[in-house]
Formats: sequence, C-alpha cells, structure tokens
Amino acid sequence: MKRIYLDYAATTPIRKEVRETMKIFEEKIFGNPSSIHKEGRTAKTALEKARNLIAEILEVKSSEIIFTNGGTESINLALFGISRTNKKFFKKPRLITSKIEHPAVLNSMKQLEKEGFEIIYINVNKDGLININELKNAINENTILVSIMYANNEIGTIQPIEKISKIIKDYQNKKRKNFPLFHTDACQAAGYLDIRPKKLGVDLLTLNASKIYGPKASGLLYIKENTLIEPLIFGGGQENNLRSGTENVSGWIGLAKALELAQKEKDKESKRLIKIRDYAIKNILKIEKTFLNGHPKIRLPNNINIIFLDIEGEALVLKLDKFGISASTGSACHSKTLEPSHVLTAIGLKREAIHGSLRLTLGKETTKKDIDYLLKVLPKIIKELRALSPISLKK
Amino acid sequence: MKRIYLDYAATTPIRKEVRETMKIFEEKIFGNPSSIHKEGRTAKTALEKARNLIAEILEVKSSEIIFTNGGTESINLALFGISRTNKKFFKKPRLITSKIEHPAVLNSMKQLEKEGFEIIYINVNKDGLININELKNAINENTILVSIMYANNEIGTIQPIEKISKIIKDYQNKKRKNFPLFHTDACQAAGYLDIRPKKLGVDLLTLNASKIYGPKASGLLYIKENTLIEPLIFGGGQENNLRSGTENVSGWIGLAKALELAQKEKDKESKRLIKIRDYAIKNILKIEKTFLNGHPKIRLPNNINIIFLDIEGEALVLKLDKFGISASTGSACHSKTLEPSHVLTAIGLKREAIHGSLRLTLGKETTKKDIDYLLKVLPKIIKELRALSPISLKK
Repeated sequence: MKRIYLDYAATTPIRKEVRETMKIFEEKIFGNPSSIHKEGRTAKTALEKARNLIAEILEVKSSEIIFTNGGTESINLALFGISRTNKKFFKKPRLITSKIEHPAVLNSMKQLEKEGFEIIYINVNKDGLININELKNAINENTILVSIMYANNEIGTIQPIEKISKIIKDYQNKKRKNFPLFHTDACQAAGYLDIRPKKLGVDLLTLNASKIYGPKASGLLYIKENTLIEPLIFGGGQENNLRSGTENVSGWIGLAKALELAQKEKDKESKRLIKIRDYAIKNILKIEKTFLNGHPKIRLPNNINIIFLDIEGEALVLKLDKFGISASTGSACHSKTLEPSHVLTAIGLKREAIHGSLRLTLGKETTKKDIDYLLKVLPKIIKELRALSPISLKK
Repeated sequence: MKRIYLDYAATTPIRKEVRETMKIFEEKIFGNPSSIHKEGRTAKTALEKARNLIAEILEVKSSEIIFTNGGTESINLALFGISRTNKKFFKKPRLITSKIEHPAVLNSMKQLEKEGFEIIYINVNKDGLININELKNAINENTILVSIMYANNEIGTIQPIEKISKIIKDYQNKKRKNFPLFHTDACQAAGYLDIRPKKLGVDLLTLNASKIYGPKASGLLYIKENTLIEPLIFGGGQENNLRSGTENVSGWIGLAKALELAQKEKDKESKRLIKIRDYAIKNILKIEKTFLNGHPKIRLPNNINIIFLDIEGEALVLKLDKFGISASTGSACHSKTLEPSHVLTAIGLKREAIHGSLRLTLGKETTKKDIDYLLKVLPKIIKELRALSPISLKK
C-alpha cells in the first residue's frame, strides 16, 4: 500500500538534492576541520562555505551563525547561554515566553526557574496568538530575554514577530538599555516564511534541518554580533568557543543546502500548500462535531489541526495508519506522555476535546489526490470510532 | 598523489559497512521515533535494536545507554549532569581528574570550578601514567566524581582504569558510601581495548562513533542504573529524559554498527598495528635528536608521538602534507591555539621541545608500505627544517 505521510511537522525525509550534496562528505571528505592537513582544510573550507551560504540567505554575518546538533540544542544554547551569563547584571532576573512554546523552550524555562529566574508565561487567545498587551506589560528592567516561537508546531499559528520586536525595541530606546534580548524558534517556519533575523528584529534565531528536508542532528543558532552568551557544551572550542565537539561537516552542509532550497521555494510551495490545506480543512469540517484549532488564516501553509469531538485521537491516528496515512495527535514530543497538549490547553480547550485532536501536516510530496483519499476514509473512521466512543474515551 | 592518512585519532572515515547500514535510514526510514504511525514505529524499532546491540557488546542494560551528539556532549553530560545534581549532598563538593584529559573534560571542569566545585588535577609521570597514590589521597568524603580518560588522544598512554576503580570501590566500602562515582572517556580506546563498563568498574563511560569509522555527531554515555544525574539539554524528554532533541536514528545506528565491528576486530587489528607502530617508532628514532612521548608499551596500538628537537611541529605537519602524508602536532583540538599541548606539558616537557612534536595515528588503511614511504621522506624533511630552524622557531 502506498503511504501518505502527513506528519511533516514531526520530521521530513531528506530531499535528494541534500543527500547528493552530503554524499561526498560521508564518503570522501571526512577530515576534522580543526586539522591543518589537506583532509582537514578541505573539510574546513566546505564547512565555511556552508556557513557563508547560510549567512547570505539570512542576510547576516557568517560569524553570527553557530552550528548545533538541532533545534533543541539551539534553543537550550540561546536560553541558558544568555540567561546564565547575564544574570549577574539583574536584581531579579526575568525571562518572558509564551504558554505554547515547544517543550525545548518550556522545559529549559522550568530548569531556569530552579536556577532563580522569574519566568513569565504569556497567554494566547483562542486562535493561538499571543496577548501582545500582556507581553508589553511583562517587560520590565529585570527582563533579560523574551523567547517567542515564530510558528507553532501543533496548531500552526504564526506570531507577529516583527510587532513583538518593535515593542522590545521601543522599550530599549525608552530605557536606553540593550535588554531584553529577543529569541525566536523558527524551526517550523523555515520552509514557508521570511526568516531573516534583521527583518524580524530578533537577536537570536533557532533553525534546524530535519524540518526542511535536511538531515537530523543538524541545526543552528543565529546570534547577533556582540551578544554576551556562554556555551552550554565545553571542550575544544569549536564554533567560536560557543559549541564544542568535532564539527558535523556533512550534517551542516546538508542544513545549508536544505535551507537554500527551502527559502528559494517557500513562496511557491506556500501557495501550493495553502490551496491543499484549505481544501482539506473545508471538507474535514463537513464531518459533524469537528472544529479547527489555530488561526484560520495566520497559520503555516502546511498545518491542519482539527478536533473531532467524542473521539480518542490516538485511536484515530492508529486507524489512519492502517489505511496508509501517517498523522499525529499533536507534536511528536507529546506522544510519549498521556498529558493533554499544553498548546490546546492554552487556547482554552477542555481535556475531553483535546483528546480528539488530529494534526495533519503537509509537505513536498502531498497532493490534492492524497487529501481526496483522506477525505474518503476519514468520515468512515470517525463514524466507526464514535460508535465505540464511550469505551475509548475512558482510557 | 596517493594520500597517506596518519591522523586517525583526529577522526576516521566512515567505513563501508557502516555507511551501508545507515543508508536506508537516510533514504527511506526517516520517521521521528516519537511518532506512533508506521514511519515512527519503524524508526523507533531500529533505534532500539541499535541500543540493544550496543548493550550486548558492552554487557550492560539497554536502559543504561544514552545516545548523544558525540564524545564532547557525552563528557559534558557526565560531568555537569552528575556534579550539579549531587552538589547539594556535599559540603565542599570535589571533582578529581587528571592533567592530561581531553579539553572536553578540562574545560567542563573549569566551568564547574566557577560553579563552586573544587577540582583536583592529578599529575602524570613522564610516560603519561597518572600518579595513583596522589589520586588515592585526593579522594575524600566530599568527592562526587572521578573522571580519568582511558587512553590519551595525544600520546596514547593507557591508564589503569581497573586499578583506579578498585581504589574507588575500596574507599566506598570502607566509608559505606556510593561516592565518588567514576567516569572514563573511552573515545580513543574503543577500537583497541576492552571497554566493558563492568569489567572496568566504571559508573559512566563515554564513547563516540567518529573515532571508530562511524559517523560524526554520534556518541553515547553509559550510565550505570540508579545513578542520579540531570540532563544538560532540556526539551521533549527523549533518551529517558536525559537528552532531549529528535533522535539521530541513522547516526546512532551507525555508531552501533561501528562499535560492533571495532570490538570484534580489536584484537587482530591491535596486533597488526602494534607491529607497524613499533617498526615506525624504532626507525623514526634513528633520526637524531628525537624521542618518543608516552609509555613505550602501555600505549594505544595506533599511536606514535615523537619530539623532533629544533623543529617547529606545525611546519613539519605542513611539509609532510605536501608529501601526501596527513599528520598532526597533537590533538586536532589544539591546532587552533598557539598554546603548547597541556599533555606534553604535564609529562614534563619544556616549551621548546613541545614545539617539535608530531603525532602519527595509524588506522585501518595503514600498511607497512605507508610507513616505509614516511621513513623515506621524514629524515629529509627534518634535515631541511632544521637547517631553517632558528627562524622557524621564533614563530
């Protein structure tokens, strides 16, 4: 049976062009970039070429790009690296974030709370947009860092990053301070949105490869020059002393290639996917007792998140899987726990409704035909599951 | 010109069998192991198979294996993870290490010193063996962790890990305590030595793939069950909540395969390389004003480290490079700095001598013929460089 993969937000396959680019670095160019012999220099040159390419795409300096092992590490480096080293300049150091961030942000914040930071979690409205006034009021002279994600991984809602940046800049100008700094997790955005840090007005920006058809274990953190930050991982001093460990040459070259293609194709691909997305949403909502999560328009072109009342989402995902369709109840990171999604909780849903959530995330291979197949099997599955619902909901 | 790569301690190419094993996970099996659909489950099953294989090789439980991004991250997780979370149980928390550890250990220790830990650096003798009595005396009731590398990356000296473990166990038994814990960095040892944690008597053990013909950005930390440790990287809770971030499935499967082959072949390969190594050493030492660093016998089968007096090591490496031979002045991690090697300093060498160090590390592809070529060109190069030496040494 042909598989229909609709879980691109969890992870993407590596696209052919990226694999081709990486191949020679897995087979032939294997040197340690810190070595001064030919093998080392060749690896180093290739790595710096990748860094320059990324800098060009993001319209920043190469020295502002720190390669990491992925989105989670980049986020940890941003949050811990900024907070711990700047803590001493603040009486009662405060960090601001939203209630719907990725666990990499929320669990880092929890740890930072233990380390003595005050964490302010900004609320979101029913569409998942953060409360801008609340954010504005939360910024005070103890605020070191604001971290707000660009686009949500579960419900796809896109935050007004430029607007938030303007608020922060206005505050800085008024107080003649360089704080708070602003970090955004742009992992889900890179395939569809403008991610240039200066355009967005952010000081730190997280990206990774495994959501844009690049390899796993490869990410980056953009850090605006002259930003005081300390490393999370200590050792040989690679990555400008901010991230030690032998460089992942092939993985980082793969990230550069993936990012180049993603940003080149983003407008065309967004247009194509919005059409398929809205077609899917319109038709899925014809099933009774369903509603859409996330903002109807200000959302990622590839994200669909629907509540099916009286349905147990996990059962739905497993049933779809039997029909060859890969979907998710929320983020892949939640599937280990039985906790209701913190994102769906934050937009005001009750536990019972959250249990019936289905996330479908589209990608490069998704066609209208795939959605037509989904639309054919989904109503039957829902009907079948609802017939069993009193039992399945007790779980 | 055919290249003769003699820098296997810096990094190894990926061997064919490992590449073949990884291939399908880069091309077809791309799911996020946290997803519950077929793609996710397939990835998860493969990942757990890799973990089980490693557990079998190391004769430990699968649950004791935490996958990481490489040796540096494993070391950081061991050192920070153990120290920070157990700190509260000790009045004046102490960590013990040696003066010749990898920068990943030494720079983590420096950071931990800033965080209030007392760090004791054990001396080594002229062969690079640590002073066992000094270590014994350094252990007190405030000691949380001892971290001693298995085999040195620069001079190849192998430490008596079992003997150190016995000292620690004796102390624990006498005091009826579970501390200090014992961590060893076994990155350089995995291709040649017995690395079974229980045999060695260690509580934590670091390994990585890129030194044993596996991929870069892939490592593991063995953590004995019931050991209290906290994560370094927070997020989705992968790796038993100790190391968040989407799993690097292909990289970790590559590590398992590389480790399987390395441990299977270690005795035969050690025997082969010791012959070539000793042949090379004997003949290089015929060049005047040279001597061997590291223990003549208790050393890695693939390590040669020689001082050429009145020579500038970097010039020598660059010259060898022109003749098609890849070598190193010390570890790859040092080549960025102009600091003299801390390892060669610790074994008692003067700055001038250290400047003339050359590390040759052999590997799978190394043959006696390669060494014969080296032995042909090396004396000429040394003679030539020594003729220039007063100038080059001023650098």
